[in-house]
Amino acid sequence: MPLCKEIREFLIDSVSKTGGHLASNLGTVELTLALHRVYDTRRDRLVFDVGHQSYTHKLLTGRREQFSTLRQHGGLSGFPRPYESEDDAFLAGHASNSISVALGMAQARTLLGQDYDVVAVIGDGALTGGLAYEGLAGAAASGEAMVIVLNDNNMSIDPNVGGIASLLQKMRIKPSYISFKKAYRAIFSQLPAIYQFNHRIKERIKDSILPGNMFSAMDLSYIGPVDGHDVKRLESVLRWARDMRQPVIVHVLTQKGKGCAFAEAHPERYHGVGPFDPVTGELKSSGEGFSEKFGELLCKFAEKDPRITAITAAMACGTGLDRFAARFPERFHDVGIAEGHATAMAAGLAKQGAIPVFAVYASFLQRGYDMLIHDVALQGLHAVFGVDRAGIVGGDGETHHGIFDVCYLRSVPGMQILCPASYAELEAMLEEAVFRREGPVAIRYPRGKEGAYTDCSTETEQLLRTGADATLLCYGMMVNEAVSAADILEKQGLSVELIKLNSIGSNDYPLVMQSLRKTGSLVFPEEVCAAGCVGTAILAQAAGESICLRNAALLNLGEGIISHGDRSLLLRDCGADTQAIVEAVRKGIPSDTKKA
Amino acid sequence: MPLCKEIREFLIDSVSKTGGHLASNLGTVELTLALHRVYDTRRDRLVFDVGHQSYTHKLLTGRREQFSTLRQHGGLSGFPRPYESEDDAFLAGHASNSISVALGMAQARTLLGQDYDVVAVIGDGALTGGLAYEGLAGAAASGEAMVIVLNDNNMSIDPNVGGIASLLQKMRIKPSYISFKKAYRAIFSQLPAIYQFNHRIKERIKDSILPGNMFSAMDLSYIGPVDGHDVKRLESVLRWARDMRQPVIVHVLTQKGKGCAFAEAHPERYHGVGPFDPVTGELKSSGEGFSEKFGELLCKFAEKDPRITAITAAMACGTGLDRFAARFPERFHDVGIAEGHATAMAAGLAKQGAIPVFAVYASFLQRGYDMLIHDVALQGLHAVFGVDRAGIVGGDGETHHGIFDVCYLRSVPGMQILCPASYAELEAMLEEAVFRREGPVAIRYPRGKEGAYTDCSTETEQLLRTGADATLLCYGMMVNEAVSAADILEKQGLSVELIKLNSIGSNDYPLVMQSLRKTGSLVFPEEVCAAGCVGTAILAQAAGESICLRNAALLNLGEGIISHGDRSLLLRDCGADTQAIVEAVRKGIPSDTKKA
Repeated sequence: MPLCKEIREFLIDSVSKTGGHLASNLGTVELTLALHRVYDTRRDRLVFDVGHQSYTHKLLTGRREQFSTLRQHGGLSGFPRPYESEDDAFLAGHASNSISVALGMAQARTLLGQDYDVVAVIGDGALTGGLAYEGLAGAAASGEAMVIVLNDNNMSIDPNVGGIASLLQKMRIKPSYISFKKAYRAIFSQLPAIYQFNHRIKERIKDSILPGNMFSAMDLSYIGPVDGHDVKRLESVLRWARDMRQPVIVHVLTQKGKGCAFAEAHPERYHGVGPFDPVTGELKSSGEGFSEKFGELLCKFAEKDPRITAITAAMACGTGLDRFAARFPERFHDVGIAEGHATAMAAGLAKQGAIPVFAVYASFLQRGYDMLIHDVALQGLHAVFGVDRAGIVGGDGETHHGIFDVCYLRSVPGMQILCPASYAELEAMLEEAVFRREGPVAIRYPRGKEGAYTDCSTETEQLLRTGADATLLCYGMMVNEAVSAADILEKQGLSVELIKLNSIGSNDYPLVMQSLRKTGSLVFPEEVCAAGCVGTAILAQAAGESICLRNAALLNLGEGIISHGDRSLLLRDCGADTQAIVEAVRKGIPSDTKKA
Repeated sequence: MPLCKEIREFLIDSVSKTGGHLASNLGTVELTLALHRVYDTRRDRLVFDVGHQSYTHKLLTGRREQFSTLRQHGGLSGFPRPYESEDDAFLAGHASNSISVALGMAQARTLLGQDYDVVAVIGDGALTGGLAYEGLAGAAASGEAMVIVLNDNNMSIDPNVGGIASLLQKMRIKPSYISFKKAYRAIFSQLPAIYQFNHRIKERIKDSILPGNMFSAMDLSYIGPVDGHDVKRLESVLRWARDMRQPVIVHVLTQKGKGCAFAEAHPERYHGVGPFDPVTGELKSSGEGFSEKFGELLCKFAEKDPRITAITAAMACGTGLDRFAARFPERFHDVGIAEGHATAMAAGLAKQGAIPVFAVYASFLQRGYDMLIHDVALQGLHAVFGVDRAGIVGGDGETHHGIFDVCYLRSVPGMQILCPASYAELEAMLEEAVFRREGPVAIRYPRGKEGAYTDCSTETEQLLRTGADATLLCYGMMVNEAVSAADILEKQGLSVELIKLNSIGSNDYPLVMQSLRKTGSLVFPEEVCAAGCVGTAILAQAAGESICLRNAALLNLGEGIISHGDRSLLLRDCGADTQAIVEAVRKGIPSDTKKA
């Protein structure tokens, strides 16, 4: 069987069992093969942007046997990871950074007099991020020998938007160019040394054929477009680009889902999937979760108030805003992978009286941190942030967990942070955020569905149980672990005072203080990194009120480098699951009074 | 006297007394005048990028009398500020956000059916930031009526770098274009309604005259270049652009420092200045501070180790790296206003064995927050961050204070944070960071010079004084206030245990814990926002060790919105100065034992 066909069949079969990223990997089989024929990934540095398209690379570097463990606890990562293999040049996960990283590597090579090649592979979606533009400008100015492969499938995860998409559209309509170049190259192929010399002539000819484009304007050499499913041609072009010894863009046209009928037909549906039927493509429906509810609710509120406008950064489906986009297209803005711009734009909208709601994954909003402070908060503007994928996200791993947001959001002046733990609370809190609050408001909610807790409250401090042996605090999804722990402890004859926080931007928790005075013991599991966690604010307030505790256990995720896998397993590893809560409460009981 | 001349003379005279931004304001007198003739800034929205070029705007909107208080405590801000005047459409300070903000405003106008014009004024320097590119792409896609004035002086603060600079260079060499357009316009000037219709023809003609450029490729209409010192022509072009009712770039060529011989000759020297002689331009030398020392030291270490490479984001002079640039040009990288790219590039450099040192202002590194986590920290890469302007910066005000960095840096996994309080410590800590630490290291140091404290230690916890009545903690420049307070208290018969922290990334402070057990009182002044401050980490550790305090006073900057003015006055306002420390210590003394 031809190698590419074999790889595709393996990918479809394997991902149908484990779930994972399908369409993007099917689209880059030939490209990855060609890259491996031109570069030695043990020595050369192949930097993937985002990295969910690295499965073929993993197959070609000896990890075929591990694919059955893909994205599972202790198993193969779905992204390139240097600690997994030396062939993975750099960790990936977020978008648009690969050019910057590759440029740094090329500069290190020059500085240290080393000898290896550097190549970045970036999708046209990632090119909508300003970071990529900064990288391109830097690469152009550097003159460093490096190849930037633009993997152009005319999609990011959702179809591309904005000026850069229309620019690429224009480039795509010049299929004649590569044929010309092939002929041109045939003449000079016996004389590699002449490339450099002839580069200027080539550029002049190219300029008269290609429409003027940004890359050329920046003084970046541009080759393309090239058929991304023709290994031989790709190999030739990559070799050519590599040997130019300067920054070169190779523009490759690929088809997402290539070679798999259902994935070709619906690349966005088969972008990131759970297990599916490998023949029909039938997906096991995972049903609706917080994201879909969020999208539904926002439609409902937008119906009532024409000031509401929704923003996404290339994640209309992921954030549940696809239904808003269909219902209110003129009030919906997909800005591409541009979280900083989305945040500053929301500030402009808010300043003039609109009610912008930006739905964004917690780990991606890290890109908008400065704009949250500078553009939104310093003027106290009323913008609403739907902070999706808050907490551990599971299979995507360390680059995607939403576990820094509590720290960085709490530092944003005046930021109100609401933490729904159920769909009912999501509705009540979103309504409150949009209609009754002023200033910036974040609502953080998890990936997936609600748990056993389905009640509704919007009180800052919600007393769930009274008790004497410890004060147990929680917010968001951790309420489910906390309630389970309280149940277990009750059976052991211990009572905890269980308080759920529904708002964590505050620095004043009178009910908690009263409880701590009574119990003298705090146990506070949090699904976030230690720095800036809510527990430290609680303990600071307690100390300020001279409350003495015999026990204070902040059960959080420490430094915050958490691998991929099931949330429950990762919580266990971090000592923040139900069992850990039970133990922390028991540890705080004076030994003479500990019960069964 | 002609108005522009009068404005210039006023600006030179006024800024020579108060200090402030000179060259950029002298360069935009005619542009601002033309903007005010075309737009009504009370109704229309004029969004300045960065905003230090807004002095003429302030003069034209009734603030002339307040110029003697410029940048002083309680006085006129050096940046646009909506709470200062309704004519200031949006707060400014950081770069590259104006297009995003203006786009949001234009979208709000359309959404709410309002009627006003929106115009952004952005320098060519700010255009090097990826955020501007995201904004341009968004504006292009939106079709919203808005004008983006590109104020092109071929400088940011230091001369521009990178691909975008070379792109603008190409555009600049087409002086014939505007003359053509003037003739073209003369034909149609009697028929405003025809503009829209004729736009397509115009575009075609323009495309054959102008070199293909990025703006056109993005489908943004482009007009330029225009002489930025010809008010009449500017007025015509702006009116034309405004009436096109679509996103339009107006490319204006200005000269920084225009009309003032010494500022024209040395625009970078007269960018932001203290008081000077208005005739000769002679600056009162402010001497060397932490930034200059940092640059000197880095040269010294780079001499020893060829792996060291220095990075700046358009702030070579401000960060003291100008001397490194002169000494090691091939090891120096100015990336433009692109902190995210600089951080990711540093990660690439570090991954391949170089030792990158990125010197950057604390408030600007907020733009690199995601890259600190994602690109640097998750792989534990050894990149060094010189976090300059940490703490209150004075005249630049709320957008520039470095008071969020302690919170956001502490959340970065494995980030080591060293806090020199003297030049000697800066040297010792930089040496340690570069040569003896692994993983990411930040060294945070203030704007300006060292204070009374000039000793040197790199111990995590440095015991400065033993005492019994309270444990007084400090780090960085706050040691000077702490020592003064300890002296005052000593005269009052009270002794504090004074511990200086030289590293604040840790969560383990055994010496502090021991001291707290002894004194039972903590007073901890910090020049940072409350969320995620070191005091909360100390109190969490104390609570975890069941240490009971009768007093705990975290004297920090609260939410962190701090205006402009003298550091000492702002610290006083926030209750974090010497006097506040003395009072907090006294408050913690049981009333029966309070002395003198």
